[in-house]
Amino acid sequence: MTDGDTRLASSSHPPSRKGTLYGVGLGPGAPDLITLRAARLIAAARVVAYPTLAGAQSFARAIAADLIADDAQEIAMDVPMSVERAPAQAAYDTGAASIALALDAGEDVICLCEGDPFFYGSFMYLFARLSDRYHVEVVPGVTSVTACAARAGMPLVARNERLTILPGPLPEAELRTRIEGAESVVIMKVGRHLPKIRAVIADLGLTAKARYAARATLPDEVILPLADAPDKAPYFSMILLTKGADPWL
Amino acid sequence: MTDGDTRLASSSHPPSRKGTLYGVGLGPGAPDLITLRAARLIAAARVVAYPTLAGAQSFARAIAADLIADDAQEIAMDVPMSVERAPAQAAYDTGAASIALALDAGEDVICLCEGDPFFYGSFMYLFARLSDRYHVEVVPGVTSVTACAARAGMPLVARNERLTILPGPLPEAELRTRIEGAESVVIMKVGRHLPKIRAVIADLGLTAKARYAARATLPDEVILPLADAPDKAPYFSMILLTKGADPWL
Repeated sequence: MTDGDTRLASSSHPPSRKGTLYGVGLGPGAPDLITLRAARLIAAARVVAYPTLAGAQSFARAIAADLIADDAQEIAMDVPMSVERAPAQAAYDTGAASIALALDAGEDVICLCEGDPFFYGSFMYLFARLSDRYHVEVVPGVTSVTACAARAGMPLVARNERLTILPGPLPEAELRTRIEGAESVVIMKVGRHLPKIRAVIADLGLTAKARYAARATLPDEVILPLADAPDKAPYFSMILLTKGADPWL
Repeated sequence: MTDGDTRLASSSHPPSRKGTLYGVGLGPGAPDLITLRAARLIAAARVVAYPTLAGAQSFARAIAADLIADDAQEIAMDVPMSVERAPAQAAYDTGAASIALALDAGEDVICLCEGDPFFYGSFMYLFARLSDRYHVEVVPGVTSVTACAARAGMPLVARNERLTILPGPLPEAELRTRIEGAESVVIMKVGRHLPKIRAVIADLGLTAKARYAARATLPDEVILPLADAPDKAPYFSMILLTKGADPWL
């Protein structure tokens, strides 16, 4: 009640208390892999924000759709797909400005993030733009890395093993060196880089120890031995490779 | 009803349908960082299993405590702390045998796992012992890696950056080489290895870019610049290091 009274008393001025920005990880795709905390925040949200890719439906919004109130305000940030960074940066500038307006009005903003906000997540671009002026809370989520491992039945690392996580667009020579020097390897963002990655792994004699995963935990999930992976891979696909010297017994 | 009838009809024989073993990730410690799926499975569980460390309270059970039914059967696997592997292996043999008994009786068994079951999780020892004979489902969880990053306000990786995850017990020379060659680094299981790790990071001139985290998301969480870390670190503590060439703007 005290909070409410204070706000009422100052209603003709901007509220003295700014809202909090929440970067909320939603997990890999299955709606029930959202955490209890994230579900509670989304269900109570009066303002939600999320990225959409080049005008397509937002994957993040789709994961959380059943939790979003009908009358919630929605801030969609349309991020163009491009190798150049300036167009995406402009989209985050615009999105951050809309979010700042809501925060200045005293509203909390729940930003929906596929996977985990700080693990290859676009939320870090909003964090960089807003965390100096606003209180920001990050709610971690299940990453696609452990989700794919779970669905593929592939334990990733135990005891003193090392895990290396690489993006598929890296140059071939670097991929080779890093895979060679690693124990367990996860290669993210495979997409059109699949032929290159597959060739490197074959050349290292490791194909039999690698699996391909796309859309893990979703109804159209694909998990296959790397040798059987389709020639066209979606951007959000992954290769898991465990050299498996240790039988984990 | 059909299922129930079938079981009743064959009640004098072993049930023909074995139970499913679920390896359920519980996240880093805060009970509301459990996923909706994990919470549903635990709340409905008639048999739960979990590791306890050298007779101490089980951290996994503590995270899930509010969800476990009062009349659930509990299988506690007491895993001794030791550098030798044989005593722990014996504990998992015994635990797997108890779990197999319940599965053979047609009961599902929910195995509680801190963090994620396949990411430095003890569940993989049960998986190795039981997955050839029983249906096993793994429910991924939030790892301590992204939980610590969230609490430390440290974005881990964006775009084409690489992430290297290392265990603290690695030899000093290997830690140095791997940290030197990496972009973002997470060092797990810091514990008594803190002085060695801190010296390596200082020697590489990276101390200012590193943070120390212990018991992230729990009430007694500690998140500090590495320079201010306590001399005695618990086993479940972590160092996050992002070289941060990229301002993520």
